[in-house]
Amino acid sequence: MIIKEITSKDNQYVLEALKLKHPKYRFQEKLFLIEGEHLLEMALNTKKVKHLFVLKPFKNINLLQLVIPLVIMKKLSSKKSPPNVIAVCYELEAKEITTKKLIYLDEVSDPGNLGTILRTALAFGYQDILLSKKCASIYNEKVISATQGALFNLNLIQSSTKHLETLKDEGYQIVATSLKNAISFEEVNLLEKYIIVFGNEGRGVSQDILKISDIKIKIPMHSIESLNVSVAASIILYRLSQR
Amino acid sequence: MIIKEITSKDNQYVLEALKLKHPKYRFQEKLFLIEGEHLLEMALNTKKVKHLFVLKPFKNINLLQLVIPLVIMKKLSSKKSPPNVIAVCYELEAKEITTKKLIYLDEVSDPGNLGTILRTALAFGYQDILLSKKCASIYNEKVISATQGALFNLNLIQSSTKHLETLKDEGYQIVATSLKNAISFEEVNLLEKYIIVFGNEGRGVSQDILKISDIKIKIPMHSIESLNVSVAASIILYRLSQR
Repeated sequence: MIIKEITSKDNQYVLEALKLKHPKYRFQEKLFLIEGEHLLEMALNTKKVKHLFVLKPFKNINLLQLVIPLVIMKKLSSKKSPPNVIAVCYELEAKEITTKKLIYLDEVSDPGNLGTILRTALAFGYQDILLSKKCASIYNEKVISATQGALFNLNLIQSSTKHLETLKDEGYQIVATSLKNAISFEEVNLLEKYIIVFGNEGRGVSQDILKISDIKIKIPMHSIESLNVSVAASIILYRLSQR
Repeated sequence: MIIKEITSKDNQYVLEALKLKHPKYRFQEKLFLIEGEHLLEMALNTKKVKHLFVLKPFKNINLLQLVIPLVIMKKLSSKKSPPNVIAVCYELEAKEITTKKLIYLDEVSDPGNLGTILRTALAFGYQDILLSKKCASIYNEKVISATQGALFNLNLIQSSTKHLETLKDEGYQIVATSLKNAISFEEVNLLEKYIIVFGNEGRGVSQDILKISDIKIKIPMHSIESLNVSVAASIILYRLSQR
């Protein structure tokens, strides 16, 4: 355990961490920030933490701990009330797909929705999550906060329509959510290997993917046009995970 | 149809509308703002609109339309890209409870969660929604946006633990969501009249209510402590509405 006290906001560690608030630098440095003890715990379990900024050092953490005053913690934090710890983490690495039940997120652009879907996916036993390029960044602070740390326990894979086509050729059934020409998801016959596709908040699943999908599903409901995408995903993932 | 052109941001209508961005004035004036055509349509159906601020007048709307320049629309709007219409609406009035399946929201404080739950509740046929005092305000712009207009088609009632007790005496079964000492919600025996209670994002349902609840339910899941409250509500409301 190494503890270092920092008092200046111009300290190199602080300046580097501040840069990580910008997507460009996160990408360049392959690092990102997480805030708060709950997320830290999840990150420590997966050995993704590089070093910590703390108000008071933790006793049992064998990493560099940079003790900073509240005023610097406020600068580093994205929240109104700053946390007592911010950790610099190593970028997550996508692994091989090992499961048969996949999720594909197609331009889910609201960070809260994306994070919530990831949290829910993990809760219902999904592991491999495919993300189209136009999804919100998984390192966005609102995404991370909404995942409640689930991102450390999922396999998040940058994907594309082309990738989906390859997976389809490998025997994955493409199941797209859609408000039009769709059957109730409760009645869908799933193959052993499937990919459920959820779409953008405004536009839904893109035409490219609808074209290659094997079946279109929707949630039966009353008196309103559509559900929030994270709500729709929750209901469908919950029910299909029970089969 | 009365159309009036406004060019000054010091115009009385504009100044009054700007005040409505603050909860205090909304409460005092019994008015609130909605943004965008989709919400306007829902509000018009329920005759809740007082007058409109528009960039260009609508043809078939028989209300006072105040034509304003983009710069004023930007000032009135809470969004990054301002809408083409903002309406001043009359406060919603709570009506008598007429249904047997109620929802009670106990300190749901995140506006996005509250709005999403209202949207979902309507989608699954719930009508009467009880709200504890510490919930986010239903007139908060993020709540309204997340409801997608559902608030105009629901009966939203200011409520309390005491009110719940009265309803319990009237034969409503109190069904509280809880992570502890709870059975799977799929196995719950519901009475003809019930109230499902969802709690605060951090603390869950308050002790007061847990004490008077007839049964505690949870969602069975893997590997994560809890779900986002709007996700939990969606799954439970969807499934119970099917019975």
